[in-house]
Amino acid sequence: MITFLSGGTGTPKLLLGVRTLIPDEEIAVVVNTAEDLWISGNHLSPDVDTVIYLFSGILNTETWWGMRDDTFVTHSEAERLGTDEFIAIGDRDRAVHIARADFLRGGMTLTEATSCLCRAFGVRARVLPMCDSGVTTIVKTPDGWKHFQEYWVRLRGRVEIDGVARRADSPPVLTKEAHDAIRESDAVVIGPSNPVTSILPILECEGARESLRGLPVIAVSPFIGDRPVSGPASALMKAAGYEPGSYGTFLLYKDLIDLFVQDIRDPSVVTGAIRLDTLMTDVEKSVSLAREILTRIPGLETSFKAE
Amino acid sequence: MITFLSGGTGTPKLLLGVRTLIPDEEIAVVVNTAEDLWISGNHLSPDVDTVIYLFSGILNTETWWGMRDDTFVTHSEAERLGTDEFIAIGDRDRAVHIARADFLRGGMTLTEATSCLCRAFGVRARVLPMCDSGVTTIVKTPDGWKHFQEYWVRLRGRVEIDGVARRADSPPVLTKEAHDAIRESDAVVIGPSNPVTSILPILECEGARESLRGLPVIAVSPFIGDRPVSGPASALMKAAGYEPGSYGTFLLYKDLIDLFVQDIRDPSVVTGAIRLDTLMTDVEKSVSLAREILTRIPGLETSFKAE
Repeated sequence: MITFLSGGTGTPKLLLGVRTLIPDEEIAVVVNTAEDLWISGNHLSPDVDTVIYLFSGILNTETWWGMRDDTFVTHSEAERLGTDEFIAIGDRDRAVHIARADFLRGGMTLTEATSCLCRAFGVRARVLPMCDSGVTTIVKTPDGWKHFQEYWVRLRGRVEIDGVARRADSPPVLTKEAHDAIRESDAVVIGPSNPVTSILPILECEGARESLRGLPVIAVSPFIGDRPVSGPASALMKAAGYEPGSYGTFLLYKDLIDLFVQDIRDPSVVTGAIRLDTLMTDVEKSVSLAREILTRIPGLETSFKAE
Repeated sequence: MITFLSGGTGTPKLLLGVRTLIPDEEIAVVVNTAEDLWISGNHLSPDVDTVIYLFSGILNTETWWGMRDDTFVTHSEAERLGTDEFIAIGDRDRAVHIARADFLRGGMTLTEATSCLCRAFGVRARVLPMCDSGVTTIVKTPDGWKHFQEYWVRLRGRVEIDGVARRADSPPVLTKEAHDAIRESDAVVIGPSNPVTSILPILECEGARESLRGLPVIAVSPFIGDRPVSGPASALMKAAGYEPGSYGTFLLYKDLIDLFVQDIRDPSVVTGAIRLDTLMTDVEKSVSLAREILTRIPGLETSFKAE
C-alpha cells in the first residue's frame, strides 16, 4: 500500500494516474480538512470530496471540485433569495454535504462519515480525513482574518494576505485510521499540493510527523519557479513567511523525506532532487508522472497493474 | 383587508379563490408554524411555504406543498447516501429552507425572514407566521411522542395516536405584525384547516383570541360528517379529545365567531350555520366558495375585483 498526503488539486491529479497503475485497494489518502466549513446548514469538506469523487469516477476534472454534470438549481435559487452561499454547491454535491452533516449531527466522527460516503460511492481506496476535530486555516487580509475559503473562493485570492494561522478548539490529532494506513504503507507520497494550506495542516496534526519515521517518503513540489502549478501556493508561502518555490517547499519537508521531486522546467535548484515532468495537463501526463514516482519506491514495481 | 388563519391545505385552497376576487394587497394570512422543523440542516415551515408559493403562483396544487415542476436531485442523492430525509424536499424548495435558515442564523425573526422570502417571490399579500418562537405539535403514538410531521409524513398517519400536545421553550405569542393585520381587517376568516394542528396553534398564541374581539369572524368547517375534506383532522380531533366533525369544530371556535360555514352535504347539524359547497375540487369551486364567504362580510362587496 501507498499513502498519499493530499489537498484538493495537485495530489488528486497525481492520484488519477496512480490508480491506473495500482489497485485502489492499495491506495490510502490522508486528506487535509483545514478548509472544511459549515455552509448553508451542512458540512463541506472540499478536499475529502474531491478525493472521494475522483475514486468514484465522478469528479469534475475541469474544475477539480464538485461532480461532473451536476446541476445548480438550489444554489441559483438560494442566491436569488439573498442567501450568502459564496461557494457554488451543485445539487448532487449538496447531498453529500447534507449526508455528512447528518452523520456528524448523529454523532459519527468525520472519519466514519467519510467511510459511509466512500461505501455509497463505491470507493475502494481508503480516504482518511487527517483529523476528526475541527481545524481551520485562516489568512490575514486587509479586512481581518478570514477562513481560507473566504479568501480563495469569495475574494478569488485577489487581496493581499500577510499572515496564515490555524484556528482550532483543540490541537488536531492525526486519526488512528490515518496513522494505521501510513504505518501499513510501503511508502508515503507527499503530493504536489499547496504546502501551507494542504500539507502542513496534515503534518501539524499530533502524531503525523512521527508516523512517517522509517518509511520511504517522496515529496513532489507543486512549484515551477516561484509559481505554483495551480492555486494560491505562492501567496500562502509568502504570507506564512516561507520562500515560495521548490526550495522553500523542500525546507518544510526535508527532515521527513527520502526523495524530492521537482519539475524539469523548475529554475530553482534543490540539491539531490530528481527532475520529472510534473505538469499534469492531461491523464497521460498524470500516469507518466505516477509511474516515475512509483518506480522509485523499493519493491513496488512488481505490483503494478497489467497495462 | 381580510385576514385568514391558515394551515397548509384547506385554507390555501380557499385563498386560491379569494385572490381572484380581492387584490393580494388586501389579504393577510396568519399562518400556523407548529409544524415547522429543522431538517437536513435547514428550516422547513410547511404552511408558510405553501402560502408563499400560492401567492407567487408557483405552488404545486396537485400536492398543495412544494413548487410546481420542482426537481429532486439532492433529495434522491441524499437518500441514496443514507440520509434520513423523510420529507421529499425539492431542489428549488430547498433553497427556500436554506435562505430562511440563513436569515434565522443571521438573527432575523421568522416574520422578517418570511417577509424577505415574500419580497423575493413577488408576494404582495401579507404572509405572517403566527409567532416568532418555536412551538411544535407533537402526537402520542405507540412508539412515544413524535413531531406531527413524523406522524403524518414519515408514518403516513398510519399509526394510532391518543394524545396531542404542543412543545415549546416559551409560551408562543402572536406576533405584533399578525396582531396588527388582524386589527386592521374588516373581517377574519378561519379557513377550513385542521382545527387541532393548524388553527388551534394560532388561537393558542398569547393575544390571538383577544385580537379577534369585535371583528366579524367567519369560520369554515373542514369536515363533511366525521371526515375531513383532506388530511388527518379526524384522528387529531379524537386524539385531542374532541368530537371529529363540524359540531366539534364549532365548539372550538364558538366564542370567537359570528358565522359558521358547513358543507351542503354535511350530515352534522350546527344550529345557525350557513350551508355552502366547501368541496373545493377545482379553482372554480374555490372562487365560488370564496365569493359566498366574502359577500357575507359587511361592506366588502363593493371592493371585489372586476370580473
